[in-house]
Amino acid sequence: MNQHQSKIRFDNEAIKELNELLAAGQYPKVFFLVDENTHQSCLIPLLQNLEELDEMEILEVEAGEKSKSVEVLNQLWMAMSELKADRSSLLVNVGGGVITDLGGFLASTYMRGIDFINFPTSLLAQVDASVGGKTAVNLEAHKNRIGIFNEPVFTGIVNDFLDTLPELERISGFAEMLKHGLIADQSYWKELCEFPITEHYPNSSLVQRSIEIKSKIVKSDFRESGPRKLLNFGHSIGHAFESIALEKGIYYPHGFAIAQGMIGESILSSKYLNLSENEMNSINDLIHSIFSKIPFDFEVEEMIGYIKMDKKNENGNLNFSLLKSIGEAEFNVEVEEKDIVSLLKFLKTND
Amino acid sequence: MNQHQSKIRFDNEAIKELNELLAAGQYPKVFFLVDENTHQSCLIPLLQNLEELDEMEILEVEAGEKSKSVEVLNQLWMAMSELKADRSSLLVNVGGGVITDLGGFLASTYMRGIDFINFPTSLLAQVDASVGGKTAVNLEAHKNRIGIFNEPVFTGIVNDFLDTLPELERISGFAEMLKHGLIADQSYWKELCEFPITEHYPNSSLVQRSIEIKSKIVKSDFRESGPRKLLNFGHSIGHAFESIALEKGIYYPHGFAIAQGMIGESILSSKYLNLSENEMNSINDLIHSIFSKIPFDFEVEEMIGYIKMDKKNENGNLNFSLLKSIGEAEFNVEVEEKDIVSLLKFLKTND
Repeated sequence: MNQHQSKIRFDNEAIKELNELLAAGQYPKVFFLVDENTHQSCLIPLLQNLEELDEMEILEVEAGEKSKSVEVLNQLWMAMSELKADRSSLLVNVGGGVITDLGGFLASTYMRGIDFINFPTSLLAQVDASVGGKTAVNLEAHKNRIGIFNEPVFTGIVNDFLDTLPELERISGFAEMLKHGLIADQSYWKELCEFPITEHYPNSSLVQRSIEIKSKIVKSDFRESGPRKLLNFGHSIGHAFESIALEKGIYYPHGFAIAQGMIGESILSSKYLNLSENEMNSINDLIHSIFSKIPFDFEVEEMIGYIKMDKKNENGNLNFSLLKSIGEAEFNVEVEEKDIVSLLKFLKTND
Repeated sequence: MNQHQSKIRFDNEAIKELNELLAAGQYPKVFFLVDENTHQSCLIPLLQNLEELDEMEILEVEAGEKSKSVEVLNQLWMAMSELKADRSSLLVNVGGGVITDLGGFLASTYMRGIDFINFPTSLLAQVDASVGGKTAVNLEAHKNRIGIFNEPVFTGIVNDFLDTLPELERISGFAEMLKHGLIADQSYWKELCEFPITEHYPNSSLVQRSIEIKSKIVKSDFRESGPRKLLNFGHSIGHAFESIALEKGIYYPHGFAIAQGMIGESILSSKYLNLSENEMNSINDLIHSIFSKIPFDFEVEEMIGYIKMDKKNENGNLNFSLLKSIGEAEFNVEVEEKDIVSLLKFLKTND
């Protein structure tokens, strides 16, 4: 387990790395975790490129956020045990963030930790979940309430996997890329503003830029006691949207929730950190033009409840990560509850 | 999280350390995990010695191994969440190995890890679970199948807590102390042979010797890839006894299972590592004189099934830690299944 450095391999290099690891004979038994979609569209092509698989098992869970639960986790622990996984077994997670988060926690806790490799297949998982060693499951509607920090042996990013995504999932991933530009790199943000996201999935080099921004931040603060919190821009409000969706059983992709969160938190940024009105408007216009495809209704009270339960809050204070300008952010900004209430009322009216 | 060094405080120093931590104000909310016995006999006296507790919650589980389950873990995750534990909360585990293992895993996985402190109250937990950062729950009858390595902020060893133990629990803890002598320190073994364990609980200095032996071994190999496996002497067979007891709902304390395991594995040691017949007999006589109070019946087939599922096995080989002589052990000794079958048949007849 290497907690402070994540090894990432792209495209053919990723396949080569996996083949080499398997050929070395260190892992007599290999488990793959997939959902029914990534099983067909990603694992099968991946397996065609692998040699030397003596013993393998495929664990398939239902696609969707509801598989990231304690119940499914328990079923997977049981399945690994029944299939006689031991400490020399390897788990390869092939799927979106649900699969890599769930599989990462599964591997990290089975027999006090076996090795795992992530092949994130959604744009969101490639640019977000691929870096930083976060593993997690949800506790009922509480997002990522249970988890640990642990790094995979390596992460394989295969650009062709993105081709298999439905449009909404591709767009969803774009939200985290925009966030990386907003909190740390104005020129990257500008480049993304020009990209025809509703038509194409981004190429390897755009994905790589996002990963680099995130890696740099994570490296400076693995356990999220400081600067890593910057990555939570859009997430205090965004996670509350997701919790409500999860509770109601509504399909609402992570990126869409974060996009709504970034709109709300840009408005808070103008109040708390003097983000210019001009920049605030350009952020909100762009996000609105891409992410308004799925309408979302909520109650202000319910949202506030979840925002208060956010993991970033400490000692009862509501801590946000907000923008000073495009490309520059600040963490641990204490936001007053009444300002969030006004903001949510405003967003509700404008929805 | 400090993974490689465990900080231990004895008696009054432990109380002082906890009071200082709480007074520093770093933990606005403190949770205590106990069972109904340690609640009365250890937590209440402990609380009488604490100052400055603004907000506290007590989580109580049923005494006994069956609380070390995924189900109880899930209830505790839910309780922490409902009681609004956040990343600045502290969990103090006050109890035997079930409480410290369960509570350690609970704290390590809640919000990707909050700080915890262990006050082991049984002799077994003081000399064994107090060092080495192992946290775990059982997966049905599979002992410690789920867990991670993580260290508490500190471990408090209060000798007076031992006074509250029923006799069988005190004797149980003695098995791990004997093991420490057997694998690493002949003079400590001899000292223990003289100790009237059926009449008294050991004093702080005897407990401390045991902790020192274990600490030294753990320090050399935190993740149990090498010498730490020595500590598993008696456990390959012992854990199988425990699994059967757990499955059948029989009360069979860990130390009694390990004691039976040490008898069996001493016999294997004479076959595989030439442990002298003289030493083998002296080990078995002493253990038999102390630990024969609880009879235990088993089926050979069932035992073999669990031994094959032991976490220490790799690539289908059965790996044991065995004795070369009293005070010297070797790990990764590959034992043949047929020899274990003969041994179990022999133990069954002699029971």
